[in-house]
Formats: sequence, structure tokens, C-alpha cells
Amino acid sequence: MKKDVVDLIKDINSPADLRKLPLDALPEVCNQIRQYIIQQLSCNPGHFASSLGVVELTVALHYVYDTPYDRIVWDVGHQAGGHKILTGRKDRFSTYRRLHGLMPFPSPEESEYDTFTSGHASTSISAALGMAVAANLHNEDRKVVAVIGDGSMSGGLAYEGLNNASTMPNNLLIILNDNNMSIDRSVGGMTDYLHQLHTSSWYNSLRYSMSQKLLKLGWLNEERKRKILRFNNSLKSLLTNQKNVFEGMDIRYFGPLDGHDVISLVHTLQSIKGMTGPKMLHIHTIKGKGFPAAEKNATIWHAPGKFNPETGERLESTNEDEPLRYQDVFGETLLELAEANPNIVGVTPAMPTGCSMNIMMKKYPERTFDVGIAEGHAVTFSAGMAKDGLIPFCNIYSAFAQRSFDNIIHDVAIGKLNVVLCFDRAGLVGEDGATHHGAFDMTSLRAVPNMIISSPMDEHELRNLMYTAQQPNMGPFVIRYPRGKGVLKDWRCPMQALPVGKGRLLQTGDDIAVLSIGPLGNEVEQAVSIAKEKGIGVQHYDMRFLKPIDEDILRYVGEHYSNVITVEDGALKGGLASAVMEFMSENGYSMRVHGMGLPDEFIEHGKPAELYQIVGLDVNSIATKIEAFSGK
Amino acid sequence: MKKDVVDLIKDINSPADLRKLPLDALPEVCNQIRQYIIQQLSCNPGHFASSLGVVELTVALHYVYDTPYDRIVWDVGHQAGGHKILTGRKDRFSTYRRLHGLMPFPSPEESEYDTFTSGHASTSISAALGMAVAANLHNEDRKVVAVIGDGSMSGGLAYEGLNNASTMPNNLLIILNDNNMSIDRSVGGMTDYLHQLHTSSWYNSLRYSMSQKLLKLGWLNEERKRKILRFNNSLKSLLTNQKNVFEGMDIRYFGPLDGHDVISLVHTLQSIKGMTGPKMLHIHTIKGKGFPAAEKNATIWHAPGKFNPETGERLESTNEDEPLRYQDVFGETLLELAEANPNIVGVTPAMPTGCSMNIMMKKYPERTFDVGIAEGHAVTFSAGMAKDGLIPFCNIYSAFAQRSFDNIIHDVAIGKLNVVLCFDRAGLVGEDGATHHGAFDMTSLRAVPNMIISSPMDEHELRNLMYTAQQPNMGPFVIRYPRGKGVLKDWRCPMQALPVGKGRLLQTGDDIAVLSIGPLGNEVEQAVSIAKEKGIGVQHYDMRFLKPIDEDILRYVGEHYSNVITVEDGALKGGLASAVMEFMSENGYSMRVHGMGLPDEFIEHGKPAELYQIVGLDVNSIATKIEAFSGK
Repeated sequence: MKKDVVDLIKDINSPADLRKLPLDALPEVCNQIRQYIIQQLSCNPGHFASSLGVVELTVALHYVYDTPYDRIVWDVGHQAGGHKILTGRKDRFSTYRRLHGLMPFPSPEESEYDTFTSGHASTSISAALGMAVAANLHNEDRKVVAVIGDGSMSGGLAYEGLNNASTMPNNLLIILNDNNMSIDRSVGGMTDYLHQLHTSSWYNSLRYSMSQKLLKLGWLNEERKRKILRFNNSLKSLLTNQKNVFEGMDIRYFGPLDGHDVISLVHTLQSIKGMTGPKMLHIHTIKGKGFPAAEKNATIWHAPGKFNPETGERLESTNEDEPLRYQDVFGETLLELAEANPNIVGVTPAMPTGCSMNIMMKKYPERTFDVGIAEGHAVTFSAGMAKDGLIPFCNIYSAFAQRSFDNIIHDVAIGKLNVVLCFDRAGLVGEDGATHHGAFDMTSLRAVPNMIISSPMDEHELRNLMYTAQQPNMGPFVIRYPRGKGVLKDWRCPMQALPVGKGRLLQTGDDIAVLSIGPLGNEVEQAVSIAKEKGIGVQHYDMRFLKPIDEDILRYVGEHYSNVITVEDGALKGGLASAVMEFMSENGYSMRVHGMGLPDEFIEHGKPAELYQIVGLDVNSIATKIEAFSGK
Repeated sequence: MKKDVVDLIKDINSPADLRKLPLDALPEVCNQIRQYIIQQLSCNPGHFASSLGVVELTVALHYVYDTPYDRIVWDVGHQAGGHKILTGRKDRFSTYRRLHGLMPFPSPEESEYDTFTSGHASTSISAALGMAVAANLHNEDRKVVAVIGDGSMSGGLAYEGLNNASTMPNNLLIILNDNNMSIDRSVGGMTDYLHQLHTSSWYNSLRYSMSQKLLKLGWLNEERKRKILRFNNSLKSLLTNQKNVFEGMDIRYFGPLDGHDVISLVHTLQSIKGMTGPKMLHIHTIKGKGFPAAEKNATIWHAPGKFNPETGERLESTNEDEPLRYQDVFGETLLELAEANPNIVGVTPAMPTGCSMNIMMKKYPERTFDVGIAEGHAVTFSAGMAKDGLIPFCNIYSAFAQRSFDNIIHDVAIGKLNVVLCFDRAGLVGEDGATHHGAFDMTSLRAVPNMIISSPMDEHELRNLMYTAQQPNMGPFVIRYPRGKGVLKDWRCPMQALPVGKGRLLQTGDDIAVLSIGPLGNEVEQAVSIAKEKGIGVQHYDMRFLKPIDEDILRYVGEHYSNVITVEDGALKGGLASAVMEFMSENGYSMRVHGMGLPDEFIEHGKPAELYQIVGLDVNSIATKIEAFSGK
């Protein structure tokens, strides 16, 4: 900070402090918050560019609205960095996303300023509408504001909320934060449509400057101003004979406005704050604003890792000797398969970089589809393609795939269509926390008929499962695999088809059996070694498939062991352990099944290794369990 | 049929036969199909008004398009009656919706003319887009048409599909069948917006009549016509300076057109059939068209039951002595609770009549929200209301609640919000078949932390669970109950709070224990009587709660019995049986658990009693199981 500048944010411990400042101090407040974010996140990696883009909006909202009484609902809360700093969490901001530290997203558990859990996109309008209705019914003069990006606007939930907001009495303000960007790029006609709304901007700026003049002359008071704004709005429709879709839905539309002009934002929000009925304010912002490198490439700087705050150099710890990430093995393998099989296509809901489908996209743009933040559509669209002979690899993060549960059942499973559902980020994902852990895919889909559900233990297995899934007439095929790096240095093996529903024996031993699915099999292998040193013989199977489950293995285990441990990186209730118990009970094997999996609670954020230890799915915990039930 | 009229549909056994007819025969074909539908459905109840509304569209589509090579994708297939009649299923139409008979919805399994399973709303655009893309990639000159109602347009999936359709190369035709109606009434701003598109109809009719004249004069050939249509379309934008949202999304827009003018529909479809790029044709139809009673009240005539085809009198078998339907007990009880507790609100995604929330809606319109076909929004909107102190009873049919899986996890469960999720139509629903059975709610939600999951055995229990759920700070509370009539004549009992997670003992006996959840408990009671007569002592518990499960009961059973049977009307894998096995295994009880529930396959359509017998969940099957494992 320059010497002659007062450190303004030092004394802002709540929005009330912010509101004590004169209007003309706000640009400097924004500057200081921005610098603080840059400084903090340069050494403590997190979502970066989104928070930079909404600094002015954040300041303006807390300046104009009476938070926390008034409600601000952030859509996908990784833009909430500035919000956290302004609402009493500045000093803990260095713990952002760390174990027991500040949460990665807004959470009512953490702060009364956080109105709603928001780790998934497109929820804000629906939730905010609920709050606005509650205020109405309670006769509270509470204002409710939803802040939603144009990327989130591609999600059907946002549209459902908007559609509903237009038909019930409410005073909701929806701020459309238009940065032409979701995580990669915004996708879809609505985005194009939004950009066309520019055309009316000459009118809006005229209107704004006129009202400012009238205000200065004293001809306008707040009530009059509101009336004139309303009139102007109708006038605009008349004059231009152009009704945009929002106005057509009876949602009053304002904008577009420069979202980095904090003074102008404050004036506008003050003007429309008291207006009744649903309203939309359309602002333009630049993701990564104020940090040149991030402005240039917002996709890389969405969550850049550590970096030099002065130069913008990213400090990647790229160790050439380390294994590739699972997502890259997926991406490279998908390209390999697509080269050999012209019916393979790729589908991603706005995550081509996140799931590395951009590798195939580069070579086969016409066979790779980024459908926007629209998980439901991604699956049903894939089903339509499968119906006519294509083999879609539809890649969705496990936690987001919860949004396509019905699409999987109704559009894929009933019709037994050949859709390969690749669930990236399955299991505990780490710093993104409870909303992002991929915990429920196996338990929810195991009950769905016709599904094949698999999980690879390593990169070779991932490749083989992908190869297997694209064989003819496989039907619905789930491959779930974790976030982060794999375990093999030499991942590019020749691929082979695996027998569906068959596991493999990794270790023999007489004392106890361990059945694992997915990458935790590697932890089991280490635990087995520890047990071996203690003279305990463990029979270890990598099940590969949760469904159909390998009944030959289960029968052998049922006949030869009195204790079996199951290990899975998904919710325990209803998962692999249950599948094994069901078989044993049905077939009259009276053995004990000891399930190890995610407990019945939402797991917080932190490093994956920390979290797996907390939930007892680390090597030592597995080894301890083996010893306890080995009978030795 | 009048004597001088040729029976045209007698000889139509496929669309190829239809296409042999001259254009001017089509109105009579429509008339005969309509009469056939009326006649058939008057004695074989099914979805009625929707099919009547699209007779002309159905005929025009099969006349113009080369089905089945070209693809027609019907959104929510209960409008597909005429389609089934025209595509070789006329003679089996009397078996529509009956056990082993014609399926209630289009199904590729049944006919190659049925392109996609469509029991749930809003899927057609996504699926059709997939087919259009597949045709492109395979260099097929296949046309793909999606037919979607304005009601289905309130679903977010439709918007996601539309949004995506506008940004990739495809020749999709979307027909917006606008009948101002979904099941009850259409809800949402998009509907209002659609109706405003009328304003350009003068222009459209002008354009149409002009092109007809030019065609007659021989000045137009097909290629020229297409060019002119394209030009006209741009001209329209220029002239009226009005760009609707579809045109703004680069989806060419045609209409609105009278959807009951089959000749005009054929002309229009022929004109736009060969045009490249995504297109939308907006038509207006009347639901129930041609049957005056249905035209007047399409909600009642959505699925009217048996009726007199001449008079329009509905032949309801209302027996005053019979118990009320569960949905009515829900509706009456909700009103009772809402009268006493001002924080209670009701939310339904387009099913106020179907779930009987219209009872509360009548008295408290401002506290009851029909949010449109938008299950995801219904839940997130409820969560927003709960966050600010309201207690929403959000009622969704169990099968449709699959669409809100992520909303339940992310927006309700993580925040432990007091949303009462009432899943109507849980278990096997009967004639609506595989897409509508409520099979997966318990298995998918049991793994989700913070959830309370309950199911009443009868109407008193339903009332008590509803009363319990609205107690302060209950958190997420599921009450699932079946379609159809209850079991008690005198349902209006005084209500009381039940202890959460506690079951009740209904019958004592030493030989075997039976644990049931939900209405199948009544079948178990009968089975227990049969067993008793044979000298078998059965300890029967109604568990009431799947989660938290009553561990006191489980412990007692584990200590005193060597065999336990569980009975549930949901998918077996991962449900009650698994919950019991998990407890027994964890606590070292080496008993056998015999699970009875829905098998791992999609169950067809038929009467509920027929279906429960097929899956082995009838009284006899339960009695047989009891005897088999009683040790006697």
C-alpha cells in the first residue's frame, strides 16, 4: 500500500463499518480488497478470478443493503472472497479452504451474512425467491438480492426460478453478473441473447444521466424517482418497440451497467432498492479484474494455485516424475479411443478443462460438446445420441451428477442406452468441501436397474474400463474415478476389454478377506503389507464393479472366511458393504461384513489425505481394522 | 360413423398408408382418429385430453415426415395416443395401459416409431438434439422433430436443451404445442411471454397468404420458397424491430399457427422441413379438442377415468363407504395444519390437483405455490423459504422427485433446513408404468446425511407424520406415501407427534420377526394372520422411519430371532433390508435378513395389485416367505 493511502479495510469488521464511509471512499476500498485477495490467494490457493470480478458489486451491495437483515444470495459462492472479507472474516481469510478454516463457499453455519450454501451453480434465484416470499408472508420489509453469473444462467434451475419469480408477488432483485464466462466459456443461446441486450444501452445511459441531473436540481425525491424509473421502463419498451425476454416475463430489466464502477452501482442499487416487483439488473464485469494475467486468461486463473502476486507467474510444482492426474489420463485415453472408434463423442457440462476433455475437443471439435452448466441436459442429450448409434462419454463431476439422477434413470437406464457416464472427482475432493465431495453416486445408482457401475483402482484400470465401456451394446456404464494424481508413472498401457462384473484377486491370505472398489485399493495394499508383517494373511480383491457385483468372489469369500472388510470411497449406507451383506444374507453365509466407507455426515474441506484420515479411510485405519477382525 | 363416409383409418396400418392419401382427406382422418380415441378411452381409462389436442399435429407430422427414418420425439408421451394409432398399434389400442398391453408412453421397446421413453416432462429437446447431432455425424439426411407443450417449457431441462440447440450445428425442428395448460394450468413468465408472441401473428398470416399466392402463380419453387422464408424471417425482425427470445438465441421462429388446421400444418411443415439450422414452430391447440366436456375442463379430463362417449358424463365409481385417497388425506390434513401454524406453506410442481394441495390453495392462495413443472426449483425454493422461518410442505410425486435429488442434498440436507418433502405416488403406481413407479426415493436418500425418511402405514400415521414434521427444528423430513385409496374409513383422527426414528410393535410372536415400512404393513398384517392360523408366531413391527432407524427394535430382533423378513415398497438394493443388515453386521448379530422389496428391474404397467403380485409383494408371497423361514 502506498504511504499516503489510509488503510481503509483495516477498520472494516462488518458491513456497518463500510456504511460509515463516504461514497467517494468506495473505489479505494475496492482497490484494497482486491489487493488483499490477490495477496492472500497468491500463497493460499483458491478460487481467484471470480472474486476479483465482483469486488465492486460486493462493496456496493453491502453499502446499499442492510445486511445481514437484507439477504444477498451468491450463486456458486466461489465469488464470495470479498464478501467474506467485508463480513468479519478478514483476519481468518488466510485459512480459506484449509482444514477447519474458512469454508470454500458461503455457509450459514459460518456466518449470518452467508444466507445459503452455494457450492453448485444456478440455485440463487430459487433460494432468494423463497426468502423474498418468506419476507412477504412475515410482513418484513426485507430486501433480497440474488447474484448470478451468465454461466450459471445456462442451468435449467436458474430458468425455473426466473420463470416462477415472474408470477408471484415478490420484490426480488436479480443481479445478472455477465462476464461472458463460466468456468471455461459461457455456452448457449441465452448468452448470445444477453449480449444483444447491449443495444438498448444508449437508452439506459441517457436515462441515468437525466435522472442524475434532476436529482441534483432537487426535482426528484426517492419516491418520484422510483415512479419515473417505472415510467421510463415502460417508455423504453414503447420507444424501441423491443421487449426483452425478462420484460416479457414481467421482470423489470435494468442495464447493462459497468460492474466495475462502484459509484454508479451504488446509485443504481439505491434507485431500484425500494421498487416493488421482481427486477433484474444486468451488469458487465471482467473475471479476474485488476490482475492482468487473470483478465487475460480467466479459465487458468479460475483457481490458479500459488502464484507470484507481483509478476503473475504461477508457481506450479510440476514434478515430471509424478504420475499424471486421473483427469488427464481420461482425456488422453478418450482421444485415443475416439481416434479408433468414430462413434465415440464427448459431452461435458462446462468442464472441458476440468475433466481434460479439451484434449479430444482440440482434435475433434465436431465430436465434442460443451453443453453449458446443464448436467441434466448433458445426460439426456447423450441419451439421444446413443439412441442413434453414437457412444457418448458424458463426463460430469460426481457431486454435480446428482443433478442428472432422473436423466440417468428415465432417459438412459430404462432404455438401456449406451451412455458412458464418467464421474470425475468421485470420493473426497479436498478443499472444495461438503458440496463437492462425490459421495452419493454409488449408493444412489446401485438401486437403478440396467446400470453397470465401475471404479478403477489405478490409471491402467481406468483405461481398460473406458475401453470396455465403448464395446457394442454395453448399456449404461458408469466409471467413477477420483480427483488428483494417479498412482502410476507409466500410465499408457495397451488397453483390453475387462469382463463386466468381474473383480480381480490382488493378494492371497487365509485370515480375513478385504474387498475394495476404486482407488482406495491402493491404501488397502499398503495395509495388507503391514498386516503381513504381523503374520496376518489377507485375501484382497479389487472388485472393479459395484454392479453387477462379482458373485463368484463373494461366494468364495462366504465359504472361506468368517470376516470380510469392504473398503469404498463413497457413502457407506447402501454401497459396497450393503451389496456384500445382501449377497451373504440371501445365500445364507453367516459371516460378518465390516464396512469401511464415508460416514453418515457431510465431510468438511481440507486436503484429501487429511480428510481420509479423519473419516478413517487411511492406511493405518484399514490396517487396524484388518488386525482387529483377523482373529489373530 | 356416418354411412356415406369411408372408414379411412381402417386401412392405415402405418404412416406409409397415411401418406398415400390425398391432402384433402386429412381432415376426415383426423376426425376418425379423434372419434376412435374418444371411443376407446371412454371404456379404457387413460390420459385423454392431451391426445385429442394433437390429433392434427400427429397426422401432419407423419404425413410430411418420413417416419420412422425421421424422428418424432414426443415430450411427455401421454399425448401419443394418435401416434400409436397411426403407427400400427390401432388394433391393440384397447390394451393401452393394461398389464402386458400397450405402454402408457412411447417406448422404443414397443415400436420403432417411438424414438424415446418419455414419461417425464421436458426431455424432448435434449433427446432430439442428440438425435439431430447423431444424424449430422453419420451424414444422414434425417429430420428430427421435438414436440413440446407449453407446460413442459417451464421445466429447466427444456431450457437447457433449447439453450444448447442454439449453439451447435443441427436442423432440429421444435414444435411448441401451446395449449396454455400443463396438467393443471401453465405457470410462469415464459408462458406469458409466449402469449405475447401473438402480436406478430398478423405478419405471419400475411406472409403465409402471400407465399401461397406466389406458389400458385408458379413463381415459387421449393428452393426459392425456403430462401424467401428465410428472408422474410429477417425482414420480420427488421420491420417490427422485435426480436423474440428464440430468434435472439438464433432459433428461427415460425408462428403462431392454428394447430387444428391440418392442411395449413402440412403446408407449413413442408415449407420448413428442408431448412437448415434450429427452428421453432409455435402452434396453438386446445387440450381436449373435439370433446366439448374436455375442452371446457382439461384438468379433469387430463385422465378422466371411464366416461360416456356420447354425453361426456364421467362414470366414477364413487363408493361413499370406501376410504379416501391418500392424497386427499394429505390435502385435508395440510389445510388443518396450516390453519393452526401460520408458518406452513405448500409447494407443488404443477400438481395441485394431483396431490390435492388445491384444498389448501383454495383457502390460502398466498401460502400455496404452484411453481410449474420444475421439481428442482420446487425444492430449492422451499429451502429458501425454510431458511427464513417458513415450514414448506413440498409435495412431489416420488418418481419426479428424482429430478430434485441434488436440490435435496445441496440445498436442504447440508443446511439441515426444515423442508417437509412429501413424496406422493411412492411405490408401484399402476398403469403409468416404469417411468412413474416411485421406486428409488428411499434407496437414494438413505445415504444422505441429516435426512429423516418416513412412510406411513395408514392415514392416521400419515397425519401423525405430517404433524410431527412441522414441529420446530425437525430438519429435512421425507414422508412417502402411495397412490390411490387408503385403508381406513375414519381417517380424521386427532393428531400427535411421533418420536422420530421409532417404530411400533403391531404383533408379537416367537418364531420370526417381520419389519415393514409403509403401506405394505397392511399386507404383512394379513400374512401374519395366515401364519398364525398355521401356528407360526410372528413379531411384526411397523418401522415408520427408514432413517433414523429404530435401533432398539433392531437390537431386540437381533437378540431374539434368527430370521427376520423386511418388507418395503421400494427398490430392494440399499433400502430397509440393507439398513437392517448393516446394523446386524455392525453389532455382531449373526441372523439372516430376508429382504422383500422391488426387484432390480424396471416394473411394467398394470393394476397395482397385479404388479405387486408379479414382484412378490402380495399377501400370499409374504405369508409364504414367513412360513419358509419360521423354522416350522
